[in-house]
Amino acid sequence: MPVHFIDSVFHSRFFSPRARRIWDDRTTLQRILDVEAVLAQAQADLNLIPHDAALEIKRKARLELFDVERISAEIAFMHHPLVPILEQFESLCDDGAGGYLHWGATTQNIFDIATVLQLRETHAALLEHLSAIRGALTRLIETHRDTLMAGRTHGQHALPMTFGFKLAAWLDELERAQTRLEQAATRAFVVTFGGAIGTLASLGDAGLRVQARVAQILELAAADVPVRTAYDRFAEYVAALGLFGAAFEKIAQEIVFMQRTEIGEAEEPFHFGKVGSSTMPQKRNPTRCLDVIGVSRLLRGNVGVILENTVSADEGDASSGIAVDALIGSSAVYAMSIAEIMHTVLDGLIVHPSVMRRNLEASGGLILAESVMMTLAQHLGRQEAHHVVYQAAMQSVENGSSFRDAVLAHPLTQGKLDRATLEAALEPQRYLGTAHEAIDQALSSARPSEVVPRENANTSVAK
Amino acid sequence: MPVHFIDSVFHSRFFSPRARRIWDDRTTLQRILDVEAVLAQAQADLNLIPHDAALEIKRKARLELFDVERISAEIAFMHHPLVPILEQFESLCDDGAGGYLHWGATTQNIFDIATVLQLRETHAALLEHLSAIRGALTRLIETHRDTLMAGRTHGQHALPMTFGFKLAAWLDELERAQTRLEQAATRAFVVTFGGAIGTLASLGDAGLRVQARVAQILELAAADVPVRTAYDRFAEYVAALGLFGAAFEKIAQEIVFMQRTEIGEAEEPFHFGKVGSSTMPQKRNPTRCLDVIGVSRLLRGNVGVILENTVSADEGDASSGIAVDALIGSSAVYAMSIAEIMHTVLDGLIVHPSVMRRNLEASGGLILAESVMMTLAQHLGRQEAHHVVYQAAMQSVENGSSFRDAVLAHPLTQGKLDRATLEAALEPQRYLGTAHEAIDQALSSARPSEVVPRENANTSVAK
Amino acid sequence: MPVHFIDSVFHSRFFSPRARRIWDDRTTLQRILDVEAVLAQAQADLNLIPHDAALEIKRKARLELFDVERISAEIAFMHHPLVPILEQFESLCDDGAGGYLHWGATTQNIFDIATVLQLRETHAALLEHLSAIRGALTRLIETHRDTLMAGRTHGQHALPMTFGFKLAAWLDELERAQTRLEQAATRAFVVTFGGAIGTLASLGDAGLRVQARVAQILELAAADVPVRTAYDRFAEYVAALGLFGAAFEKIAQEIVFMQRTEIGEAEEPFHFGKVGSSTMPQKRNPTRCLDVIGVSRLLRGNVGVILENTVSADEGDASSGIAVDALIGSSAVYAMSIAEIMHTVLDGLIVHPSVMRRNLEASGGLILAESVMMTLAQHLGRQEAHHVVYQAAMQSVENGSSFRDAVLAHPLTQGKLDRATLEAALEPQRYLGTAHEAIDQALSSARPSEVVPRENANTSVAK
Amino acid sequence: MPVHFIDSVFHSRFFSPRARRIWDDRTTLQRILDVEAVLAQAQADLNLIPHDAALEIKRKARLELFDVERISAEIAFMHHPLVPILEQFESLCDDGAGGYLHWGATTQNIFDIATVLQLRETHAALLEHLSAIRGALTRLIETHRDTLMAGRTHGQHALPMTFGFKLAAWLDELERAQTRLEQAATRAFVVTFGGAIGTLASLGDAGLRVQARVAQILELAAADVPVRTAYDRFAEYVAALGLFGAAFEKIAQEIVFMQRTEIGEAEEPFHFGKVGSSTMPQKRNPTRCLDVIGVSRLLRGNVGVILENTVSADEGDASSGIAVDALIGSSAVYAMSIAEIMHTVLDGLIVHPSVMRRNLEASGGLILAESVMMTLAQHLGRQEAHHVVYQAAMQSVENGSSFRDAVLAHPLTQGKLDRATLEAALEPQRYLGTAHEAIDQALSSARPSEVVPRENANTSVAK
Repeated sequence: MPVHFIDSVFHSRFFSPRARRIWDDRTTLQRILDVEAVLAQAQADLNLIPHDAALEIKRKARLELFDVERISAEIAFMHHPLVPILEQFESLCDDGAGGYLHWGATTQNIFDIATVLQLRETHAALLEHLSAIRGALTRLIETHRDTLMAGRTHGQHALPMTFGFKLAAWLDELERAQTRLEQAATRAFVVTFGGAIGTLASLGDAGLRVQARVAQILELAAADVPVRTAYDRFAEYVAALGLFGAAFEKIAQEIVFMQRTEIGEAEEPFHFGKVGSSTMPQKRNPTRCLDVIGVSRLLRGNVGVILENTVSADEGDASSGIAVDALIGSSAVYAMSIAEIMHTVLDGLIVHPSVMRRNLEASGGLILAESVMMTLAQHLGRQEAHHVVYQAAMQSVENGSSFRDAVLAHPLTQGKLDRATLEAALEPQRYLGTAHEAIDQALSSARPSEVVPRENANTSVAK
Repeated sequence: MPVHFIDSVFHSRFFSPRARRIWDDRTTLQRILDVEAVLAQAQADLNLIPHDAALEIKRKARLELFDVERISAEIAFMHHPLVPILEQFESLCDDGAGGYLHWGATTQNIFDIATVLQLRETHAALLEHLSAIRGALTRLIETHRDTLMAGRTHGQHALPMTFGFKLAAWLDELERAQTRLEQAATRAFVVTFGGAIGTLASLGDAGLRVQARVAQILELAAADVPVRTAYDRFAEYVAALGLFGAAFEKIAQEIVFMQRTEIGEAEEPFHFGKVGSSTMPQKRNPTRCLDVIGVSRLLRGNVGVILENTVSADEGDASSGIAVDALIGSSAVYAMSIAEIMHTVLDGLIVHPSVMRRNLEASGGLILAESVMMTLAQHLGRQEAHHVVYQAAMQSVENGSSFRDAVLAHPLTQGKLDRATLEAALEPQRYLGTAHEAIDQALSSARPSEVVPRENANTSVAK
Repeated sequence: MPVHFIDSVFHSRFFSPRARRIWDDRTTLQRILDVEAVLAQAQADLNLIPHDAALEIKRKARLELFDVERISAEIAFMHHPLVPILEQFESLCDDGAGGYLHWGATTQNIFDIATVLQLRETHAALLEHLSAIRGALTRLIETHRDTLMAGRTHGQHALPMTFGFKLAAWLDELERAQTRLEQAATRAFVVTFGGAIGTLASLGDAGLRVQARVAQILELAAADVPVRTAYDRFAEYVAALGLFGAAFEKIAQEIVFMQRTEIGEAEEPFHFGKVGSSTMPQKRNPTRCLDVIGVSRLLRGNVGVILENTVSADEGDASSGIAVDALIGSSAVYAMSIAEIMHTVLDGLIVHPSVMRRNLEASGGLILAESVMMTLAQHLGRQEAHHVVYQAAMQSVENGSSFRDAVLAHPLTQGKLDRATLEAALEPQRYLGTAHEAIDQALSSARPSEVVPRENANTSVAK
Repeated sequence: MPVHFIDSVFHSRFFSPRARRIWDDRTTLQRILDVEAVLAQAQADLNLIPHDAALEIKRKARLELFDVERISAEIAFMHHPLVPILEQFESLCDDGAGGYLHWGATTQNIFDIATVLQLRETHAALLEHLSAIRGALTRLIETHRDTLMAGRTHGQHALPMTFGFKLAAWLDELERAQTRLEQAATRAFVVTFGGAIGTLASLGDAGLRVQARVAQILELAAADVPVRTAYDRFAEYVAALGLFGAAFEKIAQEIVFMQRTEIGEAEEPFHFGKVGSSTMPQKRNPTRCLDVIGVSRLLRGNVGVILENTVSADEGDASSGIAVDALIGSSAVYAMSIAEIMHTVLDGLIVHPSVMRRNLEASGGLILAESVMMTLAQHLGRQEAHHVVYQAAMQSVENGSSFRDAVLAHPLTQGKLDRATLEAALEPQRYLGTAHEAIDQALSSARPSEVVPRENANTSVAK
């Protein structure tokens, strides 16, 4: 039975089934077989081994021909992750083709290339999710371009804005997250096939040509200096995953806050029948967002460790290799799970514009103190105006009295501010600055969303 | 001019002046002089050097006799942190006493013992703050033992409780934080005087006796095996500081939330005239709590790095030493600053019981759904009761209708629940479980607060 | 098929089978059943539920009665980790006993107590390993008390010492690691049974009595304030595991270095037939030590993340809970695996005293430069003596000439140093300072090793 | 007096003076003045404030006109980092120009843009160092293209290679480090001028035009959505710095190893008179490399913390801001110091080809076991050949006997391998695979080194 959180029956519900399919042992085994087959093909193309052998190897490189149970037992017994696979593989191959298997290769070469293939699939899935999420955010932005809400800083109401503006900042950060992933991919998704120390001496003078051909077949770049200790490639990609996860973690935190009982401005998708607690029937917990936050913390934690392991020794260093292998797979699963959950959450986000409006107005105009100050500043100067508005604001907070009245009653505003002018300064939609222009900039800078909206997409605006 | 956040004129306001006094270069220099003087005294006590020399060394071991500017310039020039000090020290000593200075010692020995002395002062300051904070929390708990408020889980109202119960959990965690610091101190505050590799060969067979005497004079324990690479001692203490900081960070986060514009249940101390923003006059930001959170993150970050550096090489490893030296001082300053700020915040915490009550009641009884369910369970069984209350709760949330009415109108409650019974189940003070007993347990397990309350202590309960 | 490194067939060979037995899903399930049974017993003892019901619950709390496959499928479907178990449990119980199952409890209560039980088993295993390792180290120290070797600092030969002295420093650090674990255990191994928010309102006024009785039955302490967010308890224990792992990581790094082809002073156990590489037949890699280093880095990485998650919100916070759950199990498995491997490594450590001696002498006496300097200092003063020896040493390094000759030929040594005196100063066993006393101190401070040496214990000293 | 390691007189020698000049308080202040002046200019260009006012502001934006002592004291007193500066600035400006200072801005806007300017200077310095280091590495590679040495994996001799090949892998990784920094810079070096919440409401509808003009004057990009909480920009750059530092840390670790007393293959620059230890005159420590390792660990530690702080709240969050501000400056200083030191180290690296050769041969041909196996495989098949060579190798290791003799004496090699063929298989220069092609690839992929070699560049090859 499994032990780790990712595999445990108690916890694996947090994790993307698609990510599991890319990274579980069966797929890993298939990718290893794929790499061995491609290696044979490349060597046949270069006339290093017979073509028939390469074809036979390719024919037998199919997971369903292998006895996974036995491999599993033998790996545990032999303490080697590849030899039992190669032995079975060899015996499956007819006509002596097995003798050409794994020609000149070292275990880590095969595992590293297989990992790159799995990462490439992960990457594609992440981009799909990002594209769909972009679609969801774009729809939300269009709907809530003018939905007024409180802008907050340091935990306090600051100035009015629109929900669309907040969404535009999310969209903007996700664009950067995607570019970062794509750029890291150009360095991480590389064929490194250098044998024991990177010189591929076992292949004589053919080493780098074999590597180049393998890369070509797999449609990947090839390493200039194929050393085993260039862990910065994977580390950078994991760091980019960490920033990717953190971007969603921030969004999830915002939704958790907006869903707070006292705030009530937005909610993650809910369906009648979803139970928040077996003992507290009223609970509508932001479960999915909390999942994202927890998983993102695990993902961010991986970044520091993989960075440490880029400081590896000599031409090969198993201590770094162990840690890196453990961190790549889990980071990929964490990132895909975050993307998958947030895709669902943003697709079905429930927004309550009327509550946003109510919260915005709850402070009786205090959130527009700057606007009042700017209006008064024309008569009193900015400094004096700040003084007046500060006094009125603090008085209203301490006594629970009306901010409007306190401003109008202040000795220094007499004859300089009438109620109509004050009310105009207190209209939030007149104090949005360039929020709409920023929204337009975000939308026009965003990549197009290429994915067809999911059928159950449901950006409901609650009544 | 300084560069680092801790020393910069722009940022040093975050940091405890007392911590700066313990850890700045002048005090560090004085502690180095102290250790050299104690070393001489110990060696004189053991008749290894003349008594007069030790007395003369002690006499001159005073910061004000040294030209700190020159030392500073020479350290930069010679790239050695101690030799310039020793040279000046030697020339200050009359009658050849300077020749007995630093007898048999290695630079790291002196620096490590000086660091232990600074850490011991830091520790004492932290315990003082903890004692005072305990006093403040105890007063708050007594005041708010019965102050009703919403208990929340996963960002949602869960069950009623009292503010005193929340405070008791804070007190309980701080007790553990203190015990942890005290236990780590027994391993960290140790004299390690082993010379270049721990054998003190330069002192012949007297090495460990000198170490023992130095330790005795300083009222510290002595290392059994005085190797330079036992960085686990400091690392453990820094880890305990990390948990100490995190305990306050959690409290600070709770205050930031309770001070949220929409929540308004509590506030960090405020005085008329304190300005939250130069442009938004209404702002009452939880500035001090946000400082604590930011600084605690820096402190927690130090933990992982110092842990890595316990994996040092051989009998001495400057790469670990550099990192550890950088991390201890900053960790101490961070921790003391956190304690100092939270001392002020908790001493003057502003609490709004009426707002707590208002928030508790805002959901129209939904927070007592479990209580209603338990009441109904006597007639319907627990499962059916959950079903009924869930339906009523969701209906009330979706329609904004009354939870009470929905329960009473439900077909399955007919004849089984009258309004009076329902109202009784909805009284929060009847559904507090053993909150008060837990408060009593926390108070009786807590260490006594030995510190006289500060004059400006001001646990105001706002009207 | 599994995904994570810990469970993968490719990698799980790194991990302790015993740890897997404590932490895999089957044992986790059994511990959950155990806790439910103890809860029922405690409530029966307090007359809150019928005694017969508690007995029946206990009777059925056996893993083999449960359909684990179905539970697994239902957890995935229902997205709840406990409800499917409770449903099956209930249907197993006769005479209505199932109705008293999980009385007043919240899911996290049960999981947290089950985790404490698993941690307690882990802790016991760690102490067993430490005891045995202490035995192995003690035997090694006794054997190598006088085995001369080079002490090194900053990667360079520094002074002579004995291998026993190095081992004594390892022993000393492991003693601290154990004390730290034991002290953390007193705070981490605690029953926290507080219901949804810690008040246990669902049990009326019996909450804390139930908790106390559960704790008594399990021979554990009970929490004073049983809140769900006191994650500092587990975090401290994981931090202690991090320091525990790092202590072994340091030892492993030293063995990897001593086993370096050019150094050859010691080796981890080897048996004829063990293959280092399928392609390089000569390889005798320090595989087990490299495993320990890699796994320890993963373990240390967990520390920072769990620390972050102690900053949880309100009375319950699933985002912290997810991360903490993931980190405890993996940390335990990592730590036990490290202990198990290092137990084997130290039990069978191969030591080459003659190579240690050869390396010590390889620099032609340079490693005793301090000793020569001290001898000369009696005639020239310390400063002049350093000057002379420095010149002779650098000359010998640059020209590859004899250090002895260079010293004797130096103008300033003429008439002050004869060859016999020089040779005496160059005898390493005369320049060991208090190395032996430190060894004795370490041995007498160490806990006794209570474990019978393993049959295959084999502290071989190679010829 | 300063407290932090970066500023302390005891430790600041580790750090780049140039980095200090970019990041110390005086420069920070000048950059703040610069940003205020550019803001005024931009607003004048857009006819929002009078041109004369902008000119006067620019005229007075010079550090030497300010009383830094007083600013420093006032910041400490007022607890605000900018207001004291603005007050002095205003009073310096004639003709009422001061009234147009800081128009519509928020403190964080100014600080963030100033930080970008400092980061841009840092970035330029890093690229300069990289270019020079590329030059040094290229010269070293050309010199040591054919210098034979042992390739090592898992701490053991593996296969022969050349030192040039190792250097080519370093060059290759540094190229990636540079690209990463450059790509991160495109996202990090951006003008974010959004006022309190990003809408710049205080500037009416001119907000984004002002931001665009400021960006244009500073030759930077402008943020699409200028929110204050887009900390991913800085975090990514710091992560790139972490990988940059780690690349050098790995190189430094390799040099420390190669300089080990027993290895002696290379050394960091040394000059007669450099003292390694005041008590051990023979010491030639790899001091600079150890500095790099220690500082790189501090830098890597910053990455995790800044990542955590990208998860900031709402439209502004001082808790993240504090941590980010502290981490950027120190990360920049750490990275520049690493680059500066490694520039010196690689420029003057001392290489001992003869020792490399001696170490390569020390194992009596074992390092070419694969080559022997491949030769035998033609007669015996690969599996049998491995068997034979393994037996001969282990026998030679255990008995200290000759590997050559053991191979030739093995029953299975009789009649199949003569001594001449064996000796040919044992010639390291015949078993280098595609090492030279990889070197060529690295050289041709590397950017050109544009920097004139430093005068004291001194890639000495010791005799």
